Amino acid sequence: MKLSDASVLVEGAIKEMELPGGDLAGLYEPISYGLSAGGKRLRPSLVLMAAEAFGGEAAVKAAIPAALGMEMFHNFTLLHDDVMDNSPMRRNRPSVMAKWDVNTAILSGDTMLTLATRQMMQVPDSLLRTVLDIFNTMAVRVYEGQQLDMEFENRDNVTSEDYLRMIGDKTGALLGASAQIGALIGGADLKDAARMEQFGMLLGQAFQIQDDWLDVYGDSNTFGKPIGGDINNNKKSYLLLTALASGTPEAEALKSAMEMPAGDSKVRVVTNIYDKLDMSDRVRKEVAHYSSEALKAIKKSGLSEEAREPFKAMIDKLTGRKR
Amino acid sequence: MKLSDASVLVEGAIKEMELPGGDLAGLYEPISYGLSAGGKRLRPSLVLMAAEAFGGEAAVKAAIPAALGMEMFHNFTLLHDDVMDNSPMRRNRPSVMAKWDVNTAILSGDTMLTLATRQMMQVPDSLLRTVLDIFNTMAVRVYEGQQLDMEFENRDNVTSEDYLRMIGDKTGALLGASAQIGALIGGADLKDAARMEQFGMLLGQAFQIQDDWLDVYGDSNTFGKPIGGDINNNKKSYLLLTALASGTPEAEALKSAMEMPAGDSKVRVVTNIYDKLDMSDRVRKEVAHYSSEALKAIKKSGLSEEAREPFKAMIDKLTGRKR
Repeated sequence: MKLSDASVLVEGAIKEMELPGGDLAGLYEPISYGLSAGGKRLRPSLVLMAAEAFGGEAAVKAAIPAALGMEMFHNFTLLHDDVMDNSPMRRNRPSVMAKWDVNTAILSGDTMLTLATRQMMQVPDSLLRTVLDIFNTMAVRVYEGQQLDMEFENRDNVTSEDYLRMIGDKTGALLGASAQIGALIGGADLKDAARMEQFGMLLGQAFQIQDDWLDVYGDSNTFGKPIGGDINNNKKSYLLLTALASGTPEAEALKSAMEMPAGDSKVRVVTNIYDKLDMSDRVRKEVAHYSSEALKAIKKSGLSEEAREPFKAMIDKLTGRKR
Repeated sequence: MKLSDASVLVEGAIKEMELPGGDLAGLYEPISYGLSAGGKRLRPSLVLMAAEAFGGEAAVKAAIPAALGMEMFHNFTLLHDDVMDNSPMRRNRPSVMAKWDVNTAILSGDTMLTLATRQMMQVPDSLLRTVLDIFNTMAVRVYEGQQLDMEFENRDNVTSEDYLRMIGDKTGALLGASAQIGALIGGADLKDAARMEQFGMLLGQAFQIQDDWLDVYGDSNTFGKPIGGDINNNKKSYLLLTALASGTPEAEALKSAMEMPAGDSKVRVVTNIYDKLDMSDRVRKEVAHYSSEALKAIKKSGLSEEAREPFKAMIDKLTGRKR
């Protein structure tokens, strides 16, 4: 199943979801609002795609609750992340925190986490413990990744290895668990499901590194965020950490450039340094490396070339957005 | 098993709990801190007491992880409640929010919820779905109770029935689920376990109404909070709601008194009105009613008089703190 077809199924399932209202609308409306914001629906789509790859069409239907559970978990983290980052906007709309208030974002977020767990429980008894163990382990990794991400802002000794671990936890784990749980619902054995987990994890890392690349070399029309945002915020992106660790005169120049006030001039200076270090090519190669490892993982899972095709297309789409 | 003995076991189990440290100490230290704050350990103790009542000593050991899970859930709600209420203190120490910051209280709280779920999963496969269903249903009720509690502050039409539902959700559900899950781990059938749930729920309501009574008629040396706090905050306590609904001239006088600035004078005036309405006796009778219903529920569960004794003592202790 193609990503675009899977995401249509996900949108439909989200629209059909019924939540309590009445005097509890204040708790549940922000949940519906958060879930209705759209986005790529990568995680739930990956659940459905993996279920179909191993179990065919019947497995897709069986995997819908787990797909919703993954999307609800993701949205729970967005509600809380927006509070932690004090972000008034999310996907071109006011964030829950801004549209309601901080307390609502916290409490409705908590509720989403428990509702997500309930969704995950709609698997046969034979899978229940396995699926919940994967889900909880993933959840803890996401919290740990968020913690590291917040701490990186105030740490001077962050390496690109630290960064890869952090995005593995914060982004990779959820994509990994989505692919793994979908595969299990589709009837994959534990070994093949673990390979699908690897696929999702590596895809998440490729995607996140690509996102850092787009911040510098992307097309502002398709990127969805202003170019140079990471540069202006001195964000410890993969590009910045790799360049700083290069031991070159450019690394020193970069340290000075980081002291510049935010603005177009700073973006130009830093981009110029990145160019001298050939960062664009180096980072694209890194993305290609993670993508190729992701494909290897999926190949080991024993899926036919035809069954692997949608996952390959998904990688291409996510890592080649500006082409 | 007596409450005091159970709480000693709980304290021991909490001390033995190991959490990750290293570069993740920023996430896990606030969790240890929250859990180490002491308190009555009512919820986990109730898990152990119910397990023993139905399954003897062996069941107590088997119930320890679930007991810890309930305490972790409770502490997760405290971390988030303190953010929502902007409370700098908790059990005579700085709250996690105050000692660290709001973001830490949110993220460490999220982590506690997932860790709590993991604790609950340490039951045999035959109980897994049942226990998690009870746990998740309880969790949603707690969120709903917190939502209602926050909304009551800004609502003018809150009735004592609304209030009883709210405390049933916010306080009763967690005590109910603790007794129910403990009973199941002890080998109780679903019916008897449901009666234990009723016991815990009614105990929670009795306890909360008693707490409102103590705010007015308690002994400041043993209450742990200043007397009259609810009065000064115009908190929609059981006493206030019942008095306002009395349709008496005193109800009108009470409305005027609510406009008074906070202070000893306001506490005296409101207490005087409550006295005229005989609120102390009326509320004590209500507490006695809930306590007696709680005892009836436990009697139906088929436990012997001897096995019921610790629960009876628990009610006496929780509802007769000033005697």
